[in-house]
Amino acid sequence: MYDVAIIGLGAAGYTAAIYTARYKLSTLIVGEDEGGMGVTAAEVGNWPGAIDIKGPDLMESFKKHATNFDNVTRKQARVEKVSKGDKAYFQITYQNGETDEAKTLIFATGSDKRHLGVPGEDKLSGKGVTYCATCDAFFYKGKDVAVLGGGDSAVEGAAIAAQVANKVYLIHRRKEFRAEPFWVDEVKKKDNVEYVLERRVVEILGDDKVSGVKLDKEFNGSDTINVDGVFIEIGSIPSTSLAEMLGCKIDDRKHLKVGEDMQTSVKGVFAAGDVSSGSNYFAQFATAAGEGSVAANSVFNYLQGDGGSEGYLSEG
Amino acid sequence: MYDVAIIGLGAAGYTAAIYTARYKLSTLIVGEDEGGMGVTAAEVGNWPGAIDIKGPDLMESFKKHATNFDNVTRKQARVEKVSKGDKAYFQITYQNGETDEAKTLIFATGSDKRHLGVPGEDKLSGKGVTYCATCDAFFYKGKDVAVLGGGDSAVEGAAIAAQVANKVYLIHRRKEFRAEPFWVDEVKKKDNVEYVLERRVVEILGDDKVSGVKLDKEFNGSDTINVDGVFIEIGSIPSTSLAEMLGCKIDDRKHLKVGEDMQTSVKGVFAAGDVSSGSNYFAQFATAAGEGSVAANSVFNYLQGDGGSEGYLSEG
Repeated sequence: MYDVAIIGLGAAGYTAAIYTARYKLSTLIVGEDEGGMGVTAAEVGNWPGAIDIKGPDLMESFKKHATNFDNVTRKQARVEKVSKGDKAYFQITYQNGETDEAKTLIFATGSDKRHLGVPGEDKLSGKGVTYCATCDAFFYKGKDVAVLGGGDSAVEGAAIAAQVANKVYLIHRRKEFRAEPFWVDEVKKKDNVEYVLERRVVEILGDDKVSGVKLDKEFNGSDTINVDGVFIEIGSIPSTSLAEMLGCKIDDRKHLKVGEDMQTSVKGVFAAGDVSSGSNYFAQFATAAGEGSVAANSVFNYLQGDGGSEGYLSEG
Repeated sequence: MYDVAIIGLGAAGYTAAIYTARYKLSTLIVGEDEGGMGVTAAEVGNWPGAIDIKGPDLMESFKKHATNFDNVTRKQARVEKVSKGDKAYFQITYQNGETDEAKTLIFATGSDKRHLGVPGEDKLSGKGVTYCATCDAFFYKGKDVAVLGGGDSAVEGAAIAAQVANKVYLIHRRKEFRAEPFWVDEVKKKDNVEYVLERRVVEILGDDKVSGVKLDKEFNGSDTINVDGVFIEIGSIPSTSLAEMLGCKIDDRKHLKVGEDMQTSVKGVFAAGDVSSGSNYFAQFATAAGEGSVAANSVFNYLQGDGGSEGYLSEG
């Protein structure tokens, strides 16, 4: 029985664990994907104090920090189910059938990349279709690729891909990008990026591997562009399914609805990071860390009221 | 004329500057106290990824990061007045009479240490009375000191002071501490800390330097304790006076009231860090950074709508 179980091995989860560890709470942190979305950032640039750090290195430092405490147990496992057990405690069930119990939960489950939903996409997933340009660009050295989207991950992805690929088509359905101007400028510096704006990809072409994309409107006299890789970076969907099993409410934007204290609609269940409605939906390392710390503080206060914590000096 | 002026040289201010810099906004960051409250943390411990870092070093890394951008101007100066200038822009007036103008403002002004309000306090301030135990403990090597308070800064302060002082009296009006259990445990490990609980200091004794404190109730048979230094760590008050000149609303807890986007009650004026009502009032490096990033993002969005930003790719 842990004081708190944190689900998610990303920036929010590890920060929460650092805090609950310092609150002397017995802490379980568990998740499937080490480093969460953080590891997909090739160059971070906006983690304060770190002018030049890569996402995987930053997340490794978070992990080392959290697991440096004796009262933190880290497991890398897929959680299949979360339920309310006896005595109002929570039970976590893993894919292999094993279980853990905790008095409180923090969902730091992040989000999953959004799919395009066009013919060819599922069939060619892993065969040229990928959802992380910065992770996979390296495999397309000297080749032609398409990056789809107009936000941070698309524009950063195009800039990174342009360093190795022969040619990058940045395909976006609008004529303006939502991305951070820093990355928009980085892309503008590359002479091998072609902007394909106000176009949608309606099909991904190829039999056993990607050969191109089909557009809804002609571009340079053709409705197809030949590429070897398609990086789909059109946003993400909060990973709320486990929390929904407990009845946690979801808001209009599909995030877990939390109060100022990061508590969900279910007592004793908290959320932090990209999955939550906090920080004005601004999904950053900095906001994930801030929310993780607040969630941990709220868990601590909750357990104090509950008499659930230990190791706290109550008299001099 | 800057796109944004950030007031405050602490964690929230520098994070906001890193973000506005990356948004390609011309950014002024100005304040009196380099590093803000962050420099008072002897050992940080809870900044994710940094197992072992001192507050001044962490804040130095924030400053280096923010001032690494060409479009960030940093000034160390006392802001005396903030007003609404022509064309709905904001004007900042410094102590020396010079001024700057900006289209938007971010108040990252932090907080000031709370005073005890007892006889002897003002007279002996700087003569043994100090408001930062971790900053000044070093000067009391081999001496006896009193630390007043029960929160993080008091208990951390007592632990740090105990490393150098002969004896530390930790005087707290309640019988339980509010501090992080990590620091409570650290204090418990020291054999030269004496707990003086459920006692208030009613007077600070001494003529031209501190000689002791007088208690409201006897402790070990006496209502005075002889000490050479008194570290008052009884909390802080948000530094809202500049923002109040613009009419920004203050909430019940004396913080600048902000929405999810960190905008105050005045359009174009944002707040972040300890001065704001954000992050459930949890004043940490992590929350200051999170709020700074959200405030910067909101400034960017505000200027976009306003047509105020530049350097943003609007067509491919």
